[in-house]
Amino acid sequence: MWGGRFEGGPSAIMREINASIPFDKALWRQDIAASKAHVAMLGAQGIVSAGDAATIAGGLDQVAAEYEANGVPENWDLEDIHMTTESRLAELIGAVAGRLHTARSRNDQVATDFRLWVRDACDSAIAGLKALQVALVNRAGEHAGSIMPGFTHLQTAQPVTLGHHLMAYYEMTARDVSRFADARVRMNRSPLGAAALAGTGFPIDRAMTAAALAFDGPTANSLDSVSDRDFALDYLMAASQCALHLSRLAEEFIIWASQPFGFVSLPDSLSTGSSIMPQKKNPDAAELVRGHSGRIIGSLTSLMITMKGLPLAYSKDMQDDKPPVFEAASLLTLCLAAMTGMVEGATFRTTRMRAAAELGYATATDLADWLVRQANIPFREAHHITGAAVKLAESRGIALDQLPLGDLQAIDPRLTQDVYAALSVEASVAARSSHGGTAPIEVGKRVAEARTALGLE
Amino acid sequence: MWGGRFEGGPSAIMREINASIPFDKALWRQDIAASKAHVAMLGAQGIVSAGDAATIAGGLDQVAAEYEANGVPENWDLEDIHMTTESRLAELIGAVAGRLHTARSRNDQVATDFRLWVRDACDSAIAGLKALQVALVNRAGEHAGSIMPGFTHLQTAQPVTLGHHLMAYYEMTARDVSRFADARVRMNRSPLGAAALAGTGFPIDRAMTAAALAFDGPTANSLDSVSDRDFALDYLMAASQCALHLSRLAEEFIIWASQPFGFVSLPDSLSTGSSIMPQKKNPDAAELVRGHSGRIIGSLTSLMITMKGLPLAYSKDMQDDKPPVFEAASLLTLCLAAMTGMVEGATFRTTRMRAAAELGYATATDLADWLVRQANIPFREAHHITGAAVKLAESRGIALDQLPLGDLQAIDPRLTQDVYAALSVEASVAARSSHGGTAPIEVGKRVAEARTALGLE
Amino acid sequence: MWGGRFEGGPSAIMREINASIPFDKALWRQDIAASKAHVAMLGAQGIVSAGDAATIAGGLDQVAAEYEANGVPENWDLEDIHMTTESRLAELIGAVAGRLHTARSRNDQVATDFRLWVRDACDSAIAGLKALQVALVNRAGEHAGSIMPGFTHLQTAQPVTLGHHLMAYYEMTARDVSRFADARVRMNRSPLGAAALAGTGFPIDRAMTAAALAFDGPTANSLDSVSDRDFALDYLMAASQCALHLSRLAEEFIIWASQPFGFVSLPDSLSTGSSIMPQKKNPDAAELVRGHSGRIIGSLTSLMITMKGLPLAYSKDMQDDKPPVFEAASLLTLCLAAMTGMVEGATFRTTRMRAAAELGYATATDLADWLVRQANIPFREAHHITGAAVKLAESRGIALDQLPLGDLQAIDPRLTQDVYAALSVEASVAARSSHGGTAPIEVGKRVAEARTALGLE
Amino acid sequence: MWGGRFEGGPSAIMREINASIPFDKALWRQDIAASKAHVAMLGAQGIVSAGDAATIAGGLDQVAAEYEANGVPENWDLEDIHMTTESRLAELIGAVAGRLHTARSRNDQVATDFRLWVRDACDSAIAGLKALQVALVNRAGEHAGSIMPGFTHLQTAQPVTLGHHLMAYYEMTARDVSRFADARVRMNRSPLGAAALAGTGFPIDRAMTAAALAFDGPTANSLDSVSDRDFALDYLMAASQCALHLSRLAEEFIIWASQPFGFVSLPDSLSTGSSIMPQKKNPDAAELVRGHSGRIIGSLTSLMITMKGLPLAYSKDMQDDKPPVFEAASLLTLCLAAMTGMVEGATFRTTRMRAAAELGYATATDLADWLVRQANIPFREAHHITGAAVKLAESRGIALDQLPLGDLQAIDPRLTQDVYAALSVEASVAARSSHGGTAPIEVGKRVAEARTALGLE
Repeated sequence: MWGGRFEGGPSAIMREINASIPFDKALWRQDIAASKAHVAMLGAQGIVSAGDAATIAGGLDQVAAEYEANGVPENWDLEDIHMTTESRLAELIGAVAGRLHTARSRNDQVATDFRLWVRDACDSAIAGLKALQVALVNRAGEHAGSIMPGFTHLQTAQPVTLGHHLMAYYEMTARDVSRFADARVRMNRSPLGAAALAGTGFPIDRAMTAAALAFDGPTANSLDSVSDRDFALDYLMAASQCALHLSRLAEEFIIWASQPFGFVSLPDSLSTGSSIMPQKKNPDAAELVRGHSGRIIGSLTSLMITMKGLPLAYSKDMQDDKPPVFEAASLLTLCLAAMTGMVEGATFRTTRMRAAAELGYATATDLADWLVRQANIPFREAHHITGAAVKLAESRGIALDQLPLGDLQAIDPRLTQDVYAALSVEASVAARSSHGGTAPIEVGKRVAEARTALGLE
Repeated sequence: MWGGRFEGGPSAIMREINASIPFDKALWRQDIAASKAHVAMLGAQGIVSAGDAATIAGGLDQVAAEYEANGVPENWDLEDIHMTTESRLAELIGAVAGRLHTARSRNDQVATDFRLWVRDACDSAIAGLKALQVALVNRAGEHAGSIMPGFTHLQTAQPVTLGHHLMAYYEMTARDVSRFADARVRMNRSPLGAAALAGTGFPIDRAMTAAALAFDGPTANSLDSVSDRDFALDYLMAASQCALHLSRLAEEFIIWASQPFGFVSLPDSLSTGSSIMPQKKNPDAAELVRGHSGRIIGSLTSLMITMKGLPLAYSKDMQDDKPPVFEAASLLTLCLAAMTGMVEGATFRTTRMRAAAELGYATATDLADWLVRQANIPFREAHHITGAAVKLAESRGIALDQLPLGDLQAIDPRLTQDVYAALSVEASVAARSSHGGTAPIEVGKRVAEARTALGLE
Repeated sequence: MWGGRFEGGPSAIMREINASIPFDKALWRQDIAASKAHVAMLGAQGIVSAGDAATIAGGLDQVAAEYEANGVPENWDLEDIHMTTESRLAELIGAVAGRLHTARSRNDQVATDFRLWVRDACDSAIAGLKALQVALVNRAGEHAGSIMPGFTHLQTAQPVTLGHHLMAYYEMTARDVSRFADARVRMNRSPLGAAALAGTGFPIDRAMTAAALAFDGPTANSLDSVSDRDFALDYLMAASQCALHLSRLAEEFIIWASQPFGFVSLPDSLSTGSSIMPQKKNPDAAELVRGHSGRIIGSLTSLMITMKGLPLAYSKDMQDDKPPVFEAASLLTLCLAAMTGMVEGATFRTTRMRAAAELGYATATDLADWLVRQANIPFREAHHITGAAVKLAESRGIALDQLPLGDLQAIDPRLTQDVYAALSVEASVAARSSHGGTAPIEVGKRVAEARTALGLE
Repeated sequence: MWGGRFEGGPSAIMREINASIPFDKALWRQDIAASKAHVAMLGAQGIVSAGDAATIAGGLDQVAAEYEANGVPENWDLEDIHMTTESRLAELIGAVAGRLHTARSRNDQVATDFRLWVRDACDSAIAGLKALQVALVNRAGEHAGSIMPGFTHLQTAQPVTLGHHLMAYYEMTARDVSRFADARVRMNRSPLGAAALAGTGFPIDRAMTAAALAFDGPTANSLDSVSDRDFALDYLMAASQCALHLSRLAEEFIIWASQPFGFVSLPDSLSTGSSIMPQKKNPDAAELVRGHSGRIIGSLTSLMITMKGLPLAYSKDMQDDKPPVFEAASLLTLCLAAMTGMVEGATFRTTRMRAAAELGYATATDLADWLVRQANIPFREAHHITGAAVKLAESRGIALDQLPLGDLQAIDPRLTQDVYAALSVEASVAARSSHGGTAPIEVGKRVAEARTALGLE
């Protein structure tokens, strides 16, 4: 395919290092679609005859049908999906196949195919995220009032509700959706017609091919069109942030499923056992979500390194763009599905959660806040008084509200019987009704808003 | 400040590993602004008295004036900018200072401060990018018709114009601007009022503080508000892609400035010499831009690793969020300014560029295209004929248009005298007038559009 | 200092992006030492006169004394530590200072200085690791017999001893020590005398300067000598693996310090409290160790990206080598010290650990092993029988050894009264006396070996 | 295989996310070898009968023969290579197969298999590096005296020889060899017998299995043995540095192959053409080496992220260790082979190289050095004088040695006719005969040493 200039063929090493067909065959649908859009335009513009255009389009349909039925053949000598398709086309329809490559190059062809693939991956990620959001919102609604310890530094901090905790992940995933959506808008311009790097002298209509492929319009600079892989990086960046969020929930499920916590039992269908320890039920799916997040981030790092310092326009280094994106997309899809399954199927042990919330002096802040409100003490002073009460209770191994009033008043005489009402975990969460706070009534509002946003109501 | 619970003070190692004041003092303006918004709201809501609110606000102004005049003192015992400020406030106005921390925590405070800082960094990056775009567009307009070799694989491919090449970077930077803008929208919600993690029982008005700080509104979930560092990652991701673009232009300037290329002479003011080789004029600024891009990407990697697998809500690991962001922002500002200076000040050696465009058989594609158009040959066949012509010319060490017609016709009899007109570099670039192509007329259109978009016309 | 070739001075941006003195002043001791070695050699070889050599050496001592007393001045116009020192030298001793730079260049000078610095950093890391190992071995000796649950997948797996667990970190840190030691050997060749890139025509004695600086000898290729930053990468790779190990121990301490686990109380001196929640005692030092590990790995990534694809010999990108190394070394030092303090000062709650080991059917494997040994059943079948026993016990909410013999025999009649002896956690750990196993006697042996290796006995 | 505890089977998502057989089947040889070593030991220790041991060993041979002939079947329900092999073994030899898993676990089994695989990968990398070194040394010997411009900042700096330049890569690859060798020593301890995490109560002989698998001995701590992936990281770190070196040579080949440089013509067998530009001969192999280096570094990043913060002992995240290592090893093998082919087959255009060395005032340092030596001027002053001479020559567009003596003496009267002899590129390289310098005689020495080290003489 390189014409008459070369003396020898590629060496065995070269065939192996150069061939991208083992992975870029994943682009076959996009390649056929872009070729069909291109040849329709060539025909409409009179660059090829209407008859030739129809012959080529028909041939492409036939190639597509073969791929659908039997998969894409991997012949390394044909290097990539573009040559594989064109070669088969020539077998089917003869020399007229050679007119398809008029006014284009593999450089704009692969840029178009890959962009279409990544655009689909954005849509797929958004769909996966929405499914996870539905699961989160459903479980959050169920547990808007289920009390658990809220942690900072993994230390018991203040009581929160499980619904509130799950809704935090709804917020994260909402940002993920917006990130994929932003990326999709930014990438949705057609590079087709940029040709090798400089545009073409044939009277092509780039707006027509752009429209046929559902792009918002053609790109504005041919050099940039074939050199740019921002769309792949935008995808990987959105995927990496999403993976980070999933890894955090995975970490929590793993910790919660440990025997000392015992906050959750993950579904059997997403757990495994041990080949040696018969009692084990391991949160493998959660661990794999956490592990995969490392590989998704590694994919982003990989492509950033590859693109760094490349002169314009196309360099072959850019062939190393696809394996990281394909791997990350495949891992992300699995992670989203596995996490959705875990959220849907988790059995939350609310009794243990509530009991844990009562340990660790989680309502100490409520004591301090009571002092500020009832005794008009500056917060800093209230914080200090409360610290002394906690220390006393801890030294006796009892809860704050088990300290007799006399002992409390010995610490500060402004403390009265009323304070005990503020020290239950129920009172604590109910009090925190500020916008976005953990009070069940407030959590319920957020859940309702989310259900509306997701079209569940 | 931790109240009465602790027996011993922190050890020397702890003071050093724990203190963030050496770097988070950079947040002082944001910290003061957020505290002022908070206390104004506390006053408006009657949570503190109007008098106390005014006293605190006045005290904060005084602290700010001191910082402005003398810098922020670094006392490790006060840990961070929040405690440094509150401690000084207490010295100035007494115990009433302790009322400022009502209904907030350092967790939402730092989330607010840092978000404000990163929002400014987005604005600053956009401003730096716009300055670079102005430089690019000005030089591109100058050189819309200056012919240079277009490269793929760093091999001479087809003639392009320098203006076209520079405008490719205009496109990249336009995507960078949109990325910072998207990030800014996504981050522009106020976490203030999330308190430690659960919200608060005080009747705060989060919409009021959000408006005072020019946020679009309050965040929706208090746990997420203090756990989230997406805004910092969004910034670093936009910065990383921008750095990648700058590194590509830097690479090109470095190659172009080499003696064998000789396409550009960078301004003396952005070059350095050698301590040993007196003839050297080194493109240091371009190399530092390329080098800094590695560190900016490293900053992103660093923060992604830090955030991976952190359970909710705040963990102290998140204190490691600021150094990478501060470093990346500082490096990016320098890189943008240096690159703007290089683009503005570069002397392009257009004669050498044009001469290079005539080497390397850069118009071979034009010969192939001529065959398609004039002789109605399928492109693949035309490509093969042209390959033979190139091989013949190369074997004689001459250019394509130096081959006698007889020799061309011996390769393919359909070649006629007319073909020579297509083989000049001027004809080649003029022909490529497809949308986004390198034809000077097309480049001129894109430059005009860009000038309008930048408000230069 | 660049001689007479330049027309204009560097612009303000250039001064800022180009100046390395703000960070490379950290190399001053190395710079003085290398200059003294160089000038002594120049004198010995007669390249400068003995008198000039003595004058220069004296002047360098004076500069060093000034730096020691007052720090290194940061004048951006002098760019770096090399020019800063030479400039001050010239002020002190006059034009003869200009002879110091004979037969060297800043390229080999910085390669030498930085290598010396990194060599010291290796030694410092090894010292920090040994201190940590002493702490680990001491605590492991104390707790060779303290029973805790061993986890896989953070699920209770089999009982182990705390001493055994701590000794796992002894093994990791032993590999860390060997990695820094290997790196030190590999880097310990002197690049001094490579000059700018090509060597020099002056009759220098590179072996002499190498010996004076305690290198094992000179490097073998001058181009490589000034282009190579493997030594910095070797350091960062060893540091990254060490940081990963520390992050794992930090993660465990954080989980163990949570209320539901309650396995450890970290020393007050390495913990902090909360500005809002008076009861909190947060494991900040452990979290910062974990967070810093992200930045150390980010530093490695940064330098790898910077070095990728750089042509020989020196490029200015390589100035971006120092900030990541300096940052990583500083963070690693802190992490090692903080972790040593935590290991030394941790209060292990052995009663809670032992109680947790009895939950979760941790001795189920012992039941299976008993069946293999006593009843000669293939392990796979024994595993299956045990699974049934666990399921029965779990359904009743009791421990394995609380199942009556009749119930066990209903599952498999080969089970006899003897089996109960195998099901205690003490019996379980005592049984695992294979080489490297958790039996207290075996742990004791490893501790003794480690004490000998560390010179503690 | 998880025994009788589970109610439902794994869901479809779980089967897919959990199954490692698609990639860990690559470990089949190691898995069989380790199982054979294990069962031989079980027999020797009387843990299984001699007859059973022989039956199992024979069955394993049969499984191996099947894998060799037909590949490893991928049944996701069997999860991994260990269960796939054991399951087939049971089909072949019946229930006695269940005795193989006595006193081991998949945790130590995979640690052993993977370690053996990575140990082989180290050996393979060393072999690939040695082949490249032979090519480098052969070409360096050929070109010990071929003059080319030496670059710093990609600016012509001083003349060097091509042999010297190639030998710089010999030095880098020698460090790579030592790094893989160090890693191999560090990893060469057998984890087999660590069992699940705690060792075993069966009277195993770990030294015997270690010896059978050519390990230097058993590991010392069972928890560490199953938690440790340092060996994989050590491999990836060595691979990353090697990839960085290869990427530098690739970058140089790409620049050298550009038309303006024209220093090298890469072999047709490792180049490709263009589907649109018939004249193109692209250095694809070099670009792919450079691109692959990004992915190799990405693999290292991925595994570091995955391991960060994992508590002991085994977590399922660690299943994400293999894809990055397998990918990096495969890419590295290709890169080494491709680079060896390029070095062997490159046609160096020595005439163009020599011509380029004469441009750019590459011998200006020689003029300065002459002044130091002949006129006893301090180097700094000599540097300044030479700068003035370069500026004058540049303003006239001539070489330094084309300046008339009168003009030189007008700059500094101490310059005499003798200076011209120092200004030829031959004189310049011949002069630089310091240890490791570029003088052909010195390069010849280093080549001879390297040939001896490689066993070529």
